[in-house]
Amino acid sequence: MSSCDAIIIGAGPAGLFAAFQLGIHGLQSVILDSASQPGGQCAALYADKPIYDLPGLPAIDGEELVRQLSRQVDRFKPKICLSDRAVFIQTGENGRHAVQTASGQRYEAPFVIVATGLGPFGRAMSRQDMIMPEGLAFAESHIEVDTERFESAVSGIFAIGDAVTYPGKLCLLVSAFHEAALMAFAIRKRRAGEKRVPQEYSSTSTTLRNIFADN
Amino acid sequence: MSSCDAIIIGAGPAGLFAAFQLGIHGLQSVILDSASQPGGQCAALYADKPIYDLPGLPAIDGEELVRQLSRQVDRFKPKICLSDRAVFIQTGENGRHAVQTASGQRYEAPFVIVATGLGPFGRAMSRQDMIMPEGLAFAESHIEVDTERFESAVSGIFAIGDAVTYPGKLCLLVSAFHEAALMAFAIRKRRAGEKRVPQEYSSTSTTLRNIFADN
Repeated sequence: MSSCDAIIIGAGPAGLFAAFQLGIHGLQSVILDSASQPGGQCAALYADKPIYDLPGLPAIDGEELVRQLSRQVDRFKPKICLSDRAVFIQTGENGRHAVQTASGQRYEAPFVIVATGLGPFGRAMSRQDMIMPEGLAFAESHIEVDTERFESAVSGIFAIGDAVTYPGKLCLLVSAFHEAALMAFAIRKRRAGEKRVPQEYSSTSTTLRNIFADN
Repeated sequence: MSSCDAIIIGAGPAGLFAAFQLGIHGLQSVILDSASQPGGQCAALYADKPIYDLPGLPAIDGEELVRQLSRQVDRFKPKICLSDRAVFIQTGENGRHAVQTASGQRYEAPFVIVATGLGPFGRAMSRQDMIMPEGLAFAESHIEVDTERFESAVSGIFAIGDAVTYPGKLCLLVSAFHEAALMAFAIRKRRAGEKRVPQEYSSTSTTLRNIFADN
């Protein structure tokens, strides 16, 4: 049993950026993916296709995007476990969650982030793909989340990217990235309890500038 | 009086990306800004400071980000009117909105997008900065919007970026970009009326690929 701050299921763009955002807030992630390389749909379907609607990137192909996202998260050294499928999430009586993989590995953390996208075969995320804890709410096989924290109906289980639904949801990369940022901030706030958590900016915060300058 | 599909107030990153997203959906924008160059805070405060938390851009300074966003929106040829401050928004009986500038220019459109950020002097957007139509809801001088369409309490007036508030709101660029995308899709849907509007992807949609390949 390995323990960490957060388990991210899915090493696509949403999962990689989630680990980056959690890293900014001081949380160490383990990322699990059934594929043999990170990148999810981007690597599998758009590796050599230009994506035109990412802000500040007039045209970037999927492979290059995944390379940049990986480079970005590298400084936080998430543990990335590939070629091993998450088969179930279980919630213990202590409120912590355990994720077990097909190979029998077991990871435990107070927070799980489901970032599975459409899955390796283009199907929407569903109960058939992974055994989820009872109490999770689904709508047309997508996980229902709030738009404040991107948390599911089960406390501590968050979900972002193409696997989720909420009013207005679009399956856009830019939305997955926003969801990752709000999720990470919400987790940081929950860990801080009563303590006030200020928002900081990577260009001006001394703490953040030190993180990025040091690595 | 100039007429267009949408008037965007603010030529910062949120405003530029809003025009880009509206362009994808076939809407022609006019962008107004009181500053003499586009870029908002990014150009004014972070021109030479690296930003580390934009997905796929491990480190980019404000000036370069504004250059890339401008390049991206250029293909949709928005009319960008600089050095002229929007002084009021007025809603006509026909439901269309008019925006008047300090120099006396008047623009009319069915949709207005407030993307003013913190304004040129670092103050939060407030009634003192611009005369807004009655009925707009404010919370601590930020415009309250829903998280489905990023529309204010006044139909047809949308708001995105640092000027807005909603549960969980963080003043992050990545959030402003997500807000712009959902706002643009909501406007497209409203224009379509009863007609179903499918979500399309820039990498796979023939329509979108043609837009980007042609320019």
